[in-house]
Formats: sequence, C-alpha cells, structure tokens
Amino acid sequence: MRLAEVIEKIAPPNAAAEEEAQRRLDHLTKPPGSLGRLEEVARRVAAIQGIVPPSLGPKRIFVFAADHGVTAEGVSAYPQAVTAQMTYNFLAGGAAINALARCFGVHIEVIDAGVDHDFPPDKNLRRLNIRRGTENFTRGPAMTRAEAEASIEGGIRCVEEAAAKERPFLFGVGEMGIGNTTSAAAVLCALTGAAPREAAGGGAGVDAAGWERKVAAIEKGLALHRPDASDPLDILAKVGGLEIGAMTGAILGAAALRVPLVLDGFIAGSAALLARAFCPRVTDFLFAAHLSAEKGHRAMVRELGVAPLLDLGMRLGEGTGACLAMGLIEAAVKLMREMATFDSAGIAGKVS
Amino acid sequence: MRLAEVIEKIAPPNAAAEEEAQRRLDHLTKPPGSLGRLEEVARRVAAIQGIVPPSLGPKRIFVFAADHGVTAEGVSAYPQAVTAQMTYNFLAGGAAINALARCFGVHIEVIDAGVDHDFPPDKNLRRLNIRRGTENFTRGPAMTRAEAEASIEGGIRCVEEAAAKERPFLFGVGEMGIGNTTSAAAVLCALTGAAPREAAGGGAGVDAAGWERKVAAIEKGLALHRPDASDPLDILAKVGGLEIGAMTGAILGAAALRVPLVLDGFIAGSAALLARAFCPRVTDFLFAAHLSAEKGHRAMVRELGVAPLLDLGMRLGEGTGACLAMGLIEAAVKLMREMATFDSAGIAGKVS
Repeated sequence: MRLAEVIEKIAPPNAAAEEEAQRRLDHLTKPPGSLGRLEEVARRVAAIQGIVPPSLGPKRIFVFAADHGVTAEGVSAYPQAVTAQMTYNFLAGGAAINALARCFGVHIEVIDAGVDHDFPPDKNLRRLNIRRGTENFTRGPAMTRAEAEASIEGGIRCVEEAAAKERPFLFGVGEMGIGNTTSAAAVLCALTGAAPREAAGGGAGVDAAGWERKVAAIEKGLALHRPDASDPLDILAKVGGLEIGAMTGAILGAAALRVPLVLDGFIAGSAALLARAFCPRVTDFLFAAHLSAEKGHRAMVRELGVAPLLDLGMRLGEGTGACLAMGLIEAAVKLMREMATFDSAGIAGKVS
Repeated sequence: MRLAEVIEKIAPPNAAAEEEAQRRLDHLTKPPGSLGRLEEVARRVAAIQGIVPPSLGPKRIFVFAADHGVTAEGVSAYPQAVTAQMTYNFLAGGAAINALARCFGVHIEVIDAGVDHDFPPDKNLRRLNIRRGTENFTRGPAMTRAEAEASIEGGIRCVEEAAAKERPFLFGVGEMGIGNTTSAAAVLCALTGAAPREAAGGGAGVDAAGWERKVAAIEKGLALHRPDASDPLDILAKVGGLEIGAMTGAILGAAALRVPLVLDGFIAGSAALLARAFCPRVTDFLFAAHLSAEKGHRAMVRELGVAPLLDLGMRLGEGTGACLAMGLIEAAVKLMREMATFDSAGIAGKVS
C-alpha cells in the first residue's frame, strides 16, 4: 500500500474495548489498579486490537540497517564499515538483539534499508534496494524526496507482508547505522525546533571533540537545507536516513493494521515523530520501550507523549529495548487473559 | 541450618569474578556500557556465583502467606479471610503471580507461614506450623521471640531444600497477608526511626480513615513495645509478621548459598532490612525488582542501597514484581553468555 493510503486507513483505537478491558481488570483477583502500568498496557492493547481480552501471537522486531554520509564529518566513535559488519552479526545470531530475541521468543527480521555494502544472497536478509547509504547532509540533501518516500514504503511493505503470513501480536522497530544518532537528532531539531546541542548525545560513545563535530554537522545541515517543519518527507529527505524512513513506514503501517508497535530508543523515536507528522493519531498505537541514555531521548518521548516502560540506562539500539518491553507487554496481556476473578475464585471483596 | 550458622556462612561476593565479567562485557559486540543496568546485573550475578559467565538454571519464587492480628484495628481494605482465599487461588493457579510465573518460566512455591486457617492436605502447600496468625501488636507482642526465630528458620529451610534438589539460578520472595503493609511499616519505623506517617501507605487500597487507623496502630505498637533498633529478632517478634520472618530467613539463606535473590516490594523490603540487621553483607546478594507504589518503598530501597530495576506503579505483592525482574536478570545473563565478541564476529573497534 502506498503512503497516502496507509495514512488514510489509520482509524482511532476502540474506546468501547478499552472500557470493557478496564471492567475486566477490575474484576480480577487483585486490588483495583495494583498492577500499575501493566493494566494500562493491557487496556491499550485491547483498544488497538478491539478485542477483550486481547489476542496473543507472534512478536516480531524489524531491524533496519543503513549507512549515513554524515559519518564523513567524524561524528561517530566507530567507522562506517561497522554497519555492514553488525548486519552480518545479526544474521549470524551473535548480536545483543539476537540473544534477547531468543530469550523473549521474538522473531527478528533484518532489513538492508541502505547499507553501503554488497551483501551476498541470503534468504534471511531483506533488501529495500533504494540506495547505498545517504549523502553527507552537510553538503547536500541526504537523499531525494522520491528515495525518502521509497524508504517509508519499504517499511510499510515489511509490516504488511509479516501480517499477511500470520496475525501478529506485537511489532517492534530497531536499527543499526553508524552515524544515525546524528541524523535522528537533526530530524528532532527540524521537527520540533530543538537546539542541536540539546538534541545531540554521545551516540555509540563519541568523545568530546567528536560531539562538537556532531553538533556542528547538524547545525550546518539545518542551516543549509532549512527543512520544512510541517513537511516530514522534506525533513527525512534532507537530513534523515534510510532506516529512519523505513521505521516511519513500519510505524504507520502497523497502526493501519491495528498491531501495537514497540519503539526502541532515540532513532526509532525520530521515526515516530515523523510518523506523527504524517498522522497525529499514530501515537495511539505506539509503546515506548525504554528511556534511552541518549541525551535527547527524554525530550523526544515527552514530545511524543508516550511514557517509556523501562529505564535501564541502555543506549544500544538494534531493538534491544523493544525486545525487553515486549516481555512486559506480553505479561500484561497474559495477566488479563489468565487471572481468576473475585467471583470465580470465591474471594471476598473490599470491607467498605 | 540454624540462623546463627547461616549468618556465619555468608561470605563476600567474588570480586575477581566481577572484574572478569566486566572484561568479558567490554569485548562483546556493542559499545562499552551500552547495555546499561543489564551489564551491572550480569556482573553482580557473576560476582555472587563466582563464575564467568554465570550459570543459568531454575528460577523460583517463594510466596509466604500469613495473617496479622493487627487487622482487628481496621487497617486494611480487605477482610482477613482473603489471606486464606488468596492462598487457595495461588494453589489453583488463578492469581497474578501464577500468570506471570507461567509467562517467565518461574516456579512458584506457596508456603503457609502462619495463615489463620486450616488448609486440607495439599502437596503443593508447604507449612511452617509455627502459629495461626500473629497477635494484634497494639495490645501485645505479635509473637514470641522463639516463634520469630522459628519463622526465620522456616524460610531458611525453604531455600536450602530447593537448592538441595537442583542448582538454582535465581530465588525470589513474595507474600500474601491482609494487614502486612502495617507490620512491614512498623518494622521499617523500628529499624530506621522513620515516622509512621511516612512509612504507612495505602496498602491494598485502604481509605483515608483506615489509613489514619493504620498510622495510629503503628504508633501505638511502637510506643507499647519500644522495640530495640539493634535487635532485629526483637523487632520481628514485637511488630513483625510470620511471612516477614520467613522472607528474612530466605534472604539470609540465599546469600549463604550464593544464589541471587530478587526482592519483591514493600513487605519483602522490610524483611531485607531485618536480614541486613543480622548481616550487613546480605545486600550484596539482593536485587530490588521494582519501585512499588506503596508510599514508604522509596525510602526503604534508598535505605537498603539497592536500586530497583522496574518502576511500573505496581503495589500487589505476591512476588509479581520479582517475577518480572527475573525476566530482565535472565536476559542480562544470556547477553553475557551468548553475544559474539568483536574479534569472533570480525567487527572493527572504535576509531580513536
């Protein structure tokens, strides 16, 4: 489905299902509200699916990899080649996301959204075939408007094809891309007017001089392109990234499919901001997995209006935070599905 | 083993293993430190077990149920009969802790630490056979010093017998006992000098008048008994509870066995404070699962010096928070065990 059609298809969550979910929660054998945010999570999943109790099913994280021309400005602690090397690591099962996915029963789908590398044929690697990395946005636009749109539509195809195979319970988005905290920070600044010094963080661990170069690159890119804050495609094309575009598409596509989507950290959050600029209602379908240690993430989740479930000082990406949060979301739904009620268990209610 | 022997047996964690664990973490395919608190968790488990990488194995939560004479003061939102009714619910698999345990692969052991009820024979219910509930501590001591010691030793036996069957990976403690936030708050006040108005929270959802009765009951109990802040057995006997004593024993016993123990919320925290009064080193073996919504819990975890892993606004008890945290702790250990290293995966290191 094309971008405009997907946006058109995103309807509000089911308020009646949410109310019914709350009533069910209040009859379970526990003091009302005592499961805290797990109750809110179960209620929101019910509203998204429109079913009480919500259905369970496969959990899938899309890990989008792409390169960033802006790495030429010396903004990252690691060389650009690491994007491709880590993509091989995902395929071999040796990365953090692989270990967590095995632990929580999550399926990982690895997508080359635009790595500057020729991968040999591999049935486990999906390719979007748009371009090999972006341009250095301090010198010209990261990509064309058509390429930006193609990256979004690539992300939409990923979630649509996964949903066509089997009814998914949860989707998640994660990424790998040396330099991509620079692009994500530029997107945050372009959309919200945040200052580059506030939006730029340490990424994978850049030193102080590298951080100054990162801030300077973002300032230069924004000054050069003056992206239109009301035009997410313009921002994505001028200072974004191919994995950011693909995540934006996956987020919009999941909402159209009424599948709850779990955001990972800072880069995924920048995609969520773009998705919201296309369709404000999309945030009703999102869960923020965790508060990243990346500097700009707190402002980002506040802006998105989504409260992170975890705060573990993580800053790895790949979907690692999303994977942990999926464990909590599944637990919340199982509580609603499996717990006895006061009546069924013969338990007395409140004294007063 | 008797209490004194267990305390004698608690040795410090293995500092060399902790250092080796950190070196291993720094070679895994991720920026150093980027897994945040999961790295700290894996490192601490390595230090407790003395093995790098740490071993995996069964996860077990002990759910101790007991009644509290102080409920006669009108301190709880629910009638005392709910303690026994919920114990049946645990045995039938219908409680929140059962659903979460199934979700995270945790074994639940239900223990009647002193419920005021005659349970029919059930091989899944362990009994400590000390007494049926405590006395109302606003009128006399909750129990005798000998009974308090017996409750601790009952908890020690639980962990020792579990460890004799199979090498455990993680232990957790949870509880059920109408009125037990009142006893736990009294223990907190007696040990730390906290004011009853600061230590007492809403428990299972008592109303404002009930909360005033709760504060008054704690004040009355402390004024009547003047428990000795340097004598944890005195405090447990005068204002504590049988499940609090049993959890204290399980905590000390787990440390002696070098098995990491996951605390649940406010009641488990009061037991941890008592355990620390017996042996300050015991906190090295503890993980705080979550920050409970129960009012006094923030001060309690600060006093214990353990940082909660989760903050989800939960206030249910039963071991529900501990169960969720076990998912995170297991994930942290699996990351250390399963991730590739930079060398093994052929990935470039930092630029500088």
